[in-house]
Amino acid sequence: MMSRQEFLLKDRLLTDYDKQLDKNGISGERLATRLHELAQIGLTDDNGSDRPGFSPRELQAKKLVSKWMKEAGLTVTTDGAGNVFGRMEGKDSTKKMILSGSHVDTVPNGGHFDGVLGVLSSLEVVEAWREEGYKPERSYEVVIFTDEEGSRFNSGFQGSDAVIGKGDIEERLKLTDQAGLSFAEVLQTAGLTVDGYLASKRDMNAYKLFVEVHIEQGKRLEKENLPCGIVTGISGPYWVEFTFTGQPGHAGNTPMDDRKDALVAASEFIQRVPSIPVKISENAVATVGKLAVKPNGVNVIPGEVSVYVDMRDIDRTDQENLVAQVKKTAGEVAEKHEVELQWSEKARVSPVPIREENQALLKDILEEQGIKPYYLPSGAGHDAMVIGEKIPATMLFVKSKDGISHRPDEWSDLNDCVQAVHVLKRFIEKQQ
Amino acid sequence: MMSRQEFLLKDRLLTDYDKQLDKNGISGERLATRLHELAQIGLTDDNGSDRPGFSPRELQAKKLVSKWMKEAGLTVTTDGAGNVFGRMEGKDSTKKMILSGSHVDTVPNGGHFDGVLGVLSSLEVVEAWREEGYKPERSYEVVIFTDEEGSRFNSGFQGSDAVIGKGDIEERLKLTDQAGLSFAEVLQTAGLTVDGYLASKRDMNAYKLFVEVHIEQGKRLEKENLPCGIVTGISGPYWVEFTFTGQPGHAGNTPMDDRKDALVAASEFIQRVPSIPVKISENAVATVGKLAVKPNGVNVIPGEVSVYVDMRDIDRTDQENLVAQVKKTAGEVAEKHEVELQWSEKARVSPVPIREENQALLKDILEEQGIKPYYLPSGAGHDAMVIGEKIPATMLFVKSKDGISHRPDEWSDLNDCVQAVHVLKRFIEKQQ
Repeated sequence: MMSRQEFLLKDRLLTDYDKQLDKNGISGERLATRLHELAQIGLTDDNGSDRPGFSPRELQAKKLVSKWMKEAGLTVTTDGAGNVFGRMEGKDSTKKMILSGSHVDTVPNGGHFDGVLGVLSSLEVVEAWREEGYKPERSYEVVIFTDEEGSRFNSGFQGSDAVIGKGDIEERLKLTDQAGLSFAEVLQTAGLTVDGYLASKRDMNAYKLFVEVHIEQGKRLEKENLPCGIVTGISGPYWVEFTFTGQPGHAGNTPMDDRKDALVAASEFIQRVPSIPVKISENAVATVGKLAVKPNGVNVIPGEVSVYVDMRDIDRTDQENLVAQVKKTAGEVAEKHEVELQWSEKARVSPVPIREENQALLKDILEEQGIKPYYLPSGAGHDAMVIGEKIPATMLFVKSKDGISHRPDEWSDLNDCVQAVHVLKRFIEKQQ
Repeated sequence: MMSRQEFLLKDRLLTDYDKQLDKNGISGERLATRLHELAQIGLTDDNGSDRPGFSPRELQAKKLVSKWMKEAGLTVTTDGAGNVFGRMEGKDSTKKMILSGSHVDTVPNGGHFDGVLGVLSSLEVVEAWREEGYKPERSYEVVIFTDEEGSRFNSGFQGSDAVIGKGDIEERLKLTDQAGLSFAEVLQTAGLTVDGYLASKRDMNAYKLFVEVHIEQGKRLEKENLPCGIVTGISGPYWVEFTFTGQPGHAGNTPMDDRKDALVAASEFIQRVPSIPVKISENAVATVGKLAVKPNGVNVIPGEVSVYVDMRDIDRTDQENLVAQVKKTAGEVAEKHEVELQWSEKARVSPVPIREENQALLKDILEEQGIKPYYLPSGAGHDAMVIGEKIPATMLFVKSKDGISHRPDEWSDLNDCVQAVHVLKRFIEKQQ
């Protein structure tokens, strides 16, 4: 067994902490302590975090948070997908509830803020209310969704999908993890069942909205030097595979003017892709992350190249325009290089818009707290993207150091985290 | 066991054969019959040829040719590398010999002309002399080199290397085939030994020159509508791996103007490479055939891309200039995209020039035969490239249909093959 020193996350977090942020029942030290304690579960040699979805480590993290939930007076239940709900009864049980939270699983050797900060922020609101003796009108639930990252099956949102009853169970049952365990077997190792997973679907009409605090995983807030910002929408990924087919040939014997090099064509396409999003919207992004070259031999002119393009925007029409423009560009390039082109859709997730009334409310609260309101899109998917398919979802992003995420050196300053909790608390209070 | 019909190569070859080419002892039907009989050895389901180096099928093909050699009056010997030499004594045994031939191994599911045509052409010269009652001044050897293609070890020229004593035996002993057999074990399966392989080195001073007939594996002669052409030089491959290092990032969360995408940089480089050779010489070629993208995930901005460039020219200085220009371009691209660049040499084979006096002799003979002299480089490596390191080597290319090679549909018309044999015969006779 490995024996290792405790990772002193708490001390690092508290070093520059501004105690003046401890007000209205919110405690920076409590938040730091909890981030620290969760960080010890699945701690890696690089001081990173390794808590795959459905793993004993994810379960251990859920149990620790459940303990804090209970200590804070919440009624804790776990559904058949392993999602944990900590419920605080509101004054008026006929009113729709407020749901808030995130996840505690991580990517392999990931960071200590992604997901965890959202869960602990939602819980800190309860702690603050408790100290203030405040009781909300609406019932409030803090949620920990299972396996958001998808590192177990290369397919995330297993917990939030279950809550809204999303997806085809037959397809899900075909998933296997790296060890070859089926989805059903993995559920079993986590003490769950397929029937229980299916029974986790909730009546989402019972909820007014979902709100999630999350680290930005980008550099925009850092550049603006702002603790947190208003998410304008969550862009879903739209993946298209473009296959350029030219003519393979011997690298030595084929004159330069007698080639149909699929890679040269694909390269022009790859080079042109980054210039397209700016023509669509300020939120649009397009990326070629994956490539398959055939036959991929040093001395063979590539006969076939598949280019995978990831296209996102927070507006559905903009996303569709982006995809159309990228397809048009691929067609132009193929024609110019006299190669064949085929494309096929590999994934299509529609963006989740965030209601303007909720963005406006966040703006008011930020101004109230003396923070310049700043709007930014979420390029990555989050549990809020899934839940947002059924009920209004709102997100608040917290500044990430150097935009780094999914790595041990993922970092957000405690001052920024605590300011986000203040904003979250006011936001929920104003939803009553 | 698979039972299959005979592949009727002979009938196809003879369909459009011009009988007037049967003169001076050369027989189109004999050549077609032998191409046909060799094609049955290792015939694939696609009517392709599968005779890996050192395999029983390569050995069977060598044995069949050896039988024909003996029937033609040649003294046949096999060296410790499995190379077969069929010797005809000349009138003057003090004069340096002429060596001519090629190989009978093929790539997996390859064609029926690559290598085989060279061996049979060299043998057909002997058959013709026999019918004419001609005896050359110089002794003449028809050679079958072992494992030219390198499909056994991903490293070719095992036979010709042995003849000139090329390469480091320690490195060669580290080779393994796909089945995991070592070089020594593979020799053993072919009835050979490492000691025997090493003892196959010949005194190349005994030879005046080597001449090889080979299919072009390109489209130049087809475009000119010429049966055969004069090879001006054999270009060796120069391989450099260029690695562009940018910054990985999330495809959704990283704004377009805040990226250091290694693949976008690499793509500009790949696109610029094809424009460089034309600035160097008419023989220069440069190809990006292989690419490695890291991490190669659809939703991750590539942080590192390795680009393998194959650069060739028949002139050594031109080849070096080509490499220098490609490196310069890579540097410019890296600077423009603000990514890091590293390169490392992966292979460096110097081109083999072909003596102008031998090219001139071929020109005279072509004109004599009523064929327009046409000059073209050899972009691919051949046994002549290896043997050419020690003695003057000359090559004559035969027209390839659609430039196709290393595939079952590799094809050269019998008329063109026979015309090449006439040229080869005259060339050898004029070397006396």
